[in-house]
Amino acid sequence: MSRIFNEAYKAKVMSADDAAALIHNGDNIGFSGFTGAGYPKAVPGALATRIKAAHARGDEFRVGVYTGASTAPELDGALAETGGISFRAPYQSDPIMRNMINKGVSEYSDMHLSHSAIWMRQGFLGHLHVAVIEVTAIKADGTAVPSSSIGNNNVYLDTADKIILEVNEWQSLDLEGMHDVYYGTALPPDRLPIPLTKAADRIGQTTMKIDFDRVIAVVESNAEDRNTPFKPLDEDSRAIAGHLIDFLGGEVTAGRMPTNLLPLQSGVGNIANAVLAGLLESPFENLTSYTEVIQDGMVDLIDSGKVIAASATAFSLSPTAAERMNNHAADYRKSIILRPQEISNHPENIRRLGVVACNGMIEADMYGNVNSTHVMGSKMQNGIGGSGDFTRNAYISCFVTPSTAKHGNISCFVPMVSHHDHTEHDVQVLITERGLADLRGLSPKQRAKSIIENCVHPDYQAALSDYFERASKTANGLQTPHDLREALSWHVRFLETGSMKQ
Amino acid sequence: MSRIFNEAYKAKVMSADDAAALIHNGDNIGFSGFTGAGYPKAVPGALATRIKAAHARGDEFRVGVYTGASTAPELDGALAETGGISFRAPYQSDPIMRNMINKGVSEYSDMHLSHSAIWMRQGFLGHLHVAVIEVTAIKADGTAVPSSSIGNNNVYLDTADKIILEVNEWQSLDLEGMHDVYYGTALPPDRLPIPLTKAADRIGQTTMKIDFDRVIAVVESNAEDRNTPFKPLDEDSRAIAGHLIDFLGGEVTAGRMPTNLLPLQSGVGNIANAVLAGLLESPFENLTSYTEVIQDGMVDLIDSGKVIAASATAFSLSPTAAERMNNHAADYRKSIILRPQEISNHPENIRRLGVVACNGMIEADMYGNVNSTHVMGSKMQNGIGGSGDFTRNAYISCFVTPSTAKHGNISCFVPMVSHHDHTEHDVQVLITERGLADLRGLSPKQRAKSIIENCVHPDYQAALSDYFERASKTANGLQTPHDLREALSWHVRFLETGSMKQ
Repeated sequence: MSRIFNEAYKAKVMSADDAAALIHNGDNIGFSGFTGAGYPKAVPGALATRIKAAHARGDEFRVGVYTGASTAPELDGALAETGGISFRAPYQSDPIMRNMINKGVSEYSDMHLSHSAIWMRQGFLGHLHVAVIEVTAIKADGTAVPSSSIGNNNVYLDTADKIILEVNEWQSLDLEGMHDVYYGTALPPDRLPIPLTKAADRIGQTTMKIDFDRVIAVVESNAEDRNTPFKPLDEDSRAIAGHLIDFLGGEVTAGRMPTNLLPLQSGVGNIANAVLAGLLESPFENLTSYTEVIQDGMVDLIDSGKVIAASATAFSLSPTAAERMNNHAADYRKSIILRPQEISNHPENIRRLGVVACNGMIEADMYGNVNSTHVMGSKMQNGIGGSGDFTRNAYISCFVTPSTAKHGNISCFVPMVSHHDHTEHDVQVLITERGLADLRGLSPKQRAKSIIENCVHPDYQAALSDYFERASKTANGLQTPHDLREALSWHVRFLETGSMKQ
Repeated sequence: MSRIFNEAYKAKVMSADDAAALIHNGDNIGFSGFTGAGYPKAVPGALATRIKAAHARGDEFRVGVYTGASTAPELDGALAETGGISFRAPYQSDPIMRNMINKGVSEYSDMHLSHSAIWMRQGFLGHLHVAVIEVTAIKADGTAVPSSSIGNNNVYLDTADKIILEVNEWQSLDLEGMHDVYYGTALPPDRLPIPLTKAADRIGQTTMKIDFDRVIAVVESNAEDRNTPFKPLDEDSRAIAGHLIDFLGGEVTAGRMPTNLLPLQSGVGNIANAVLAGLLESPFENLTSYTEVIQDGMVDLIDSGKVIAASATAFSLSPTAAERMNNHAADYRKSIILRPQEISNHPENIRRLGVVACNGMIEADMYGNVNSTHVMGSKMQNGIGGSGDFTRNAYISCFVTPSTAKHGNISCFVPMVSHHDHTEHDVQVLITERGLADLRGLSPKQRAKSIIENCVHPDYQAALSDYFERASKTANGLQTPHDLREALSWHVRFLETGSMKQ
């Protein structure tokens, strides 16, 4: 059964190969897709084939790839593998894509996800030639029902010269009504307040506007999202979740937070999912969420009635949860709202709602700076994503990590982080399986003491204290005592010996 | 002539010494004051005397000092000199205060100025025992007219146990009507949109609410603000201003900015003031400003008719300009609006208005990270102030600096900054006397090339290129190539030899 309910659009249906033939060397392409949900499944592969053929002929064929966030092997993987991605923004997590970035084949501009939309609209990210957007259906009125993510879809649909739509029959038609596409953005000096005051508010429309005249192709597909199982909860994750939940309980007791907390944001991944699982067993009720992605843990919280409303821009589900979502979308759309990422990640909304932010990280330093992106200073992992949007503007911002990585050879707490994504000014609470450091209102020296005592693994506590004490004797100032000769020596040691241990 | 027009308040008038006697060891005190404007002139000195006397007796007497931003020798200087400041937030620039911080006598929590208000209201910055607030007058209705800054006054008046008001006759009575004190803030879940859509909008009231029952003293004073002359414009400052104005003209030509630009923010200091002076000679008309402080250059722009509305939270004027302001406040209040810093620096407003931000810095690195606060990694200079509030949320964020400092012995562009305040994600344009690097949408490697070519002093260009090339050969990944063994070596060399030169 075709999902194209508009006759004029039916005339534009073609194969993925024919659609990909309309994309040219040098084009910048805005793809749908956010955390492996809602990316186009057919055209990227066809484009990759086209690029490979061009390369085989000795022809230049490289494109700029813009998305909502990460996608999947069928998009990032297939295109990156050709070596034909000249530029990538604003986020990625595909192994092949990451490798091409770290080999210097593809230039990658890592940015706050809220900036990606606004900068594209402001004309700061170059000219967008094509938008390739997956939708659930094209309605008789010519608007389109988004699929399992919105991300930057509306931005790319608004700004690209040409539009290719992929209509994916795998997505449930019952997703219609779950989305809230806001069209009140405008460039300054005409920007207005965003009229959102609760996580559950609906302020837009359920479908995306499409400019028919710019649509050059409609492609039909039937393929599932990259739905990845979450790892089973381990002891560390449970301990981290426990510390966070205790902390939030303490804030309620101290009168600094309502008994149903404030809207929760949790980053993508296993630890974040564990925190959600922990909330399932917590005493909190009538919770809300204002976040980027709906993970399995959130679906469980909704099923249990613990969470009464969850706002996000995408799903990031296991195959089981994705099937549950597709079968029961008509129920879930009562409590789940999917928004454009320019709204889900907008500082205005995050600060107004007073979001409780909880994000993963690669490492922190003893003064509270956080590295979310780079392994040993140079190598890109995924990207900053929305962590900065939430962290800076949160009511309380928390970062979670096990205290060590690589079988204990990496301490996730170092004298100085090898890359800075969130500075000391924005990081309020650090949590490991060891405990929680509440850094609010502390000076850097006070933070160092709290972090070393509460978060650092015993294998590294003495070494970090030793660095702090020696730096305090030799530094040119005692606000943030460092010995710059060895501030990065733990990373150097790891690169040279495979371990940060002395 | 008394400025106390309310009979009940007259009964609370006492000397500064008597008022200071009501402040106790261990108290946290919220003082008015922002960039040397509107701080209390009498009570801090009396308190310093009281602290010294206690110390002479061998008694403990230390207090926490909270302000809007920097103050003056009569406040920060006098209190810091006693060694009696246990804790300082959120910003300072006094030489004695800075010295006590870097000696480790006073703990300093450096924070975004927009966070200081919100965290105090959320109860994250400790208990505030006393507010000491300078006002221009106490009106018959019991409200108070702010003086030459608002800063955090309303926050401290709202949250402190006890209130001491200083009524300063030096401040012009005609300031009444210039202020716009917004009382629509609330804690989540009850926060609402801030109804401000233009820099000139007035959304609050002209006076501050005072809870009479918590007022424990009213002190009369007559003393001028710390008004510091600006340095005469030098060639570097003129060149920097020229590059910025050319860039903005290019943005207008490219259709990315209206012909009257967007509201301007400029940091505090001589270079920022030079940029304003440059605008005086530019072709731009009908400009507006949404910024922290009104400096001399802004007053000139208003006088010339180039700027039609300027929103700030404080003055930062030379003695001559301060006299002009005091004599003509009734005129200036038609185009100048002074707001609480929780509004002047609010991300919501800055992003909505599309502010063009321009801030000074200590150093940047070749990948576009900026250090605004620390000299050689450890030593606090002033603080981050509002630079992060504006930079992150600006339409375009620019940073300006001469390419070198200390007679050429410091390169303001280094392999890796020794402290990170603004990360690569937030810095769009870097400007020195040499030229301008437009970093929008670039990858780190592309940024490095642009910065080295356009901003770096010729004495350091080859060394920085050499580092970049060598790091690109040895790094574990090519997203942000670093050799961590020497990423901070330029700073180490300066500390050891007095010069970054090899």
